[in-house]
Amino acid sequence: MSSVALDERLVRDSYPVAELPLCQLRLMDDTRFPWLILIPRRSGVSEVFDLEAADQRQLWHEVGEVGRMLKALTQADKINVANLGNVVSQLHVHVVARKSDDDAWPGPVWGHGAPQPYDRNDLASRRDYLLAQLDGMKLQL
Amino acid sequence: MSSVALDERLVRDSYPVAELPLCQLRLMDDTRFPWLILIPRRSGVSEVFDLEAADQRQLWHEVGEVGRMLKALTQADKINVANLGNVVSQLHVHVVARKSDDDAWPGPVWGHGAPQPYDRNDLASRRDYLLAQLDGMKLQL
Repeated sequence: MSSVALDERLVRDSYPVAELPLCQLRLMDDTRFPWLILIPRRSGVSEVFDLEAADQRQLWHEVGEVGRMLKALTQADKINVANLGNVVSQLHVHVVARKSDDDAWPGPVWGHGAPQPYDRNDLASRRDYLLAQLDGMKLQL
Repeated sequence: MSSVALDERLVRDSYPVAELPLCQLRLMDDTRFPWLILIPRRSGVSEVFDLEAADQRQLWHEVGEVGRMLKALTQADKINVANLGNVVSQLHVHVVARKSDDDAWPGPVWGHGAPQPYDRNDLASRRDYLLAQLDGMKLQL
């Protein structure tokens, strides 16, 4: 499994959860929203369509399975899936669980107010909880 | 090719361009951003991961090919791809060409200011132009 240097803002704003077949899965450090990001271990790519075809399929498969898991876990009203990359050009996909009573609903989460970081202990226990959910999921396409 | 009733807000806010193998392609009626949406002809689905696996792959293939075309056409700095669905639950994917000098950069386009509708003649000519780009693209996975 190759590794790829992560953009420093991704490192600062999120917490590593797991290595999926193609992507590093990270938890955004913001208690307002259950918010995961997937970062393919491929360098020099900003657009999904610039990945090789097999990688594109694997990325969307991982995004779909993670989204399904997050929706079941959080009882979200909607999962928001997005590749924006206006600020951080390294390719990454957001998977955000949204509820109709959350802080930004029905608007987008990006650029909305200030992140509210997790307590460090809570972050670790959330990582363990997410890891347990990933166990047994069919993440390889 | 089956058809599916479109949410009335999608009809009001966008203009039909073409029927792709899975999706209806529409142009958002907002001159501030080159902004397309793809709506799979499947009813009762809000989340991409609730589509059948083959449909998920076809949807992301169409999104990727449309994104690549739109980036080449507009010389965009980044293509934003998103399935949000907080307001309109009918499954649809946004493909938006972003430039570093556009009205909302680097923030998201959703919920940003008021749309600026196209002149009707301009809308028709843009549709023709987009249709010409689609000609010859490999849209069936």
